[in-house]
Amino acid sequence: MNFLEERIVKDGVVKPGNVLKVDSFLNHQMDISLMDQLGDEFKRRFAGKNINKVLTIEASGIAIACSVARAFGVPLVFAKKSKSVNIDGDMYVAEVESFTHKNKNQVIVSKKYLSPDDHVLIIDDFLANGCALQGLISITESAGATVEGLGIAIEKGFQFGGRSIRNLGYHLESVAIVDSMNAETGEIVFREQ
Amino acid sequence: MNFLEERIVKDGVVKPGNVLKVDSFLNHQMDISLMDQLGDEFKRRFAGKNINKVLTIEASGIAIACSVARAFGVPLVFAKKSKSVNIDGDMYVAEVESFTHKNKNQVIVSKKYLSPDDHVLIIDDFLANGCALQGLISITESAGATVEGLGIAIEKGFQFGGRSIRNLGYHLESVAIVDSMNAETGEIVFREQ
Repeated sequence: MNFLEERIVKDGVVKPGNVLKVDSFLNHQMDISLMDQLGDEFKRRFAGKNINKVLTIEASGIAIACSVARAFGVPLVFAKKSKSVNIDGDMYVAEVESFTHKNKNQVIVSKKYLSPDDHVLIIDDFLANGCALQGLISITESAGATVEGLGIAIEKGFQFGGRSIRNLGYHLESVAIVDSMNAETGEIVFREQ
Repeated sequence: MNFLEERIVKDGVVKPGNVLKVDSFLNHQMDISLMDQLGDEFKRRFAGKNINKVLTIEASGIAIACSVARAFGVPLVFAKKSKSVNIDGDMYVAEVESFTHKNKNQVIVSKKYLSPDDHVLIIDDFLANGCALQGLISITESAGATVEGLGIAIEKGFQFGGRSIRNLGYHLESVAIVDSMNAETGEIVFREQ
């Protein structure tokens, strides 16, 4: 097991309905040294890529993405989930349906911060059905920028998001891929990588 | 001028209606080295305090708060703005009215991540009327935890948030306090600190 799989086994909680709660260290309370380990891990996994920007989506992706941007020495852009009165008119928009929150959001990035010169590493904390990631890919390509890769902390391997993004030819790396969970026993089975 | 004031003068844009746009480096695209400078600055300004937790609110406070939590070597908790189906039932809730977005949000922190043992440094990117900060103070004190201080990147000194929080006796530090802005000339006047 790698460092993230070990932490999930130690502090993650499996709930009925295939919910994996990692809010004690990843997406509500955050262990900054774990964020930095994730930053270093993605730096290693995407070492050959010419990355000049990290893109994530609010809110729980931001902490990991900060550490990744620091590891690469590049700026971070985070997509916003709804139109804010403080954003200028000129923006890229993708419509994203959340399976967690059962609603649709517009994902928005200002046109000032993505351009055809950008080589983008997309980062998020979770991948299940991949709707948020699809929105970030769509926005990046709308800008004429290049998706160099996608880095995820925890992928639910039994949902279809990861497979569909890999089938499209993208370089997707998930530090932990959960193939199955059992809410009664608490057991978590990780995919061998 | 300090490092943040210099950056605001260089890259900030004054818009009509007392709007200061800093989305090229602070709250949409983020300069991680600036976040780390802010982390070091708050570590210096709150050096005498016994801080064991950093608290912020999604989304644009998270990047600064990560750097502050790293500087202090403590965990970060971010408050969420609406009830998520992935949060357990037991949480602290404060109702907050946003002057920017003209709506009310519930600010939520799980009871697992704030307790009477916690000595909390509250961090956010902007302070105008102070509604978000008041919600974070309310939640911290509901938990029986101690507010050791509040650290803000940019305070709009001509709005009432900072004054009311200082009048209540809290130790509030803002790295840049804007006393006035002129959308026609672009001039920004900072308060001497």
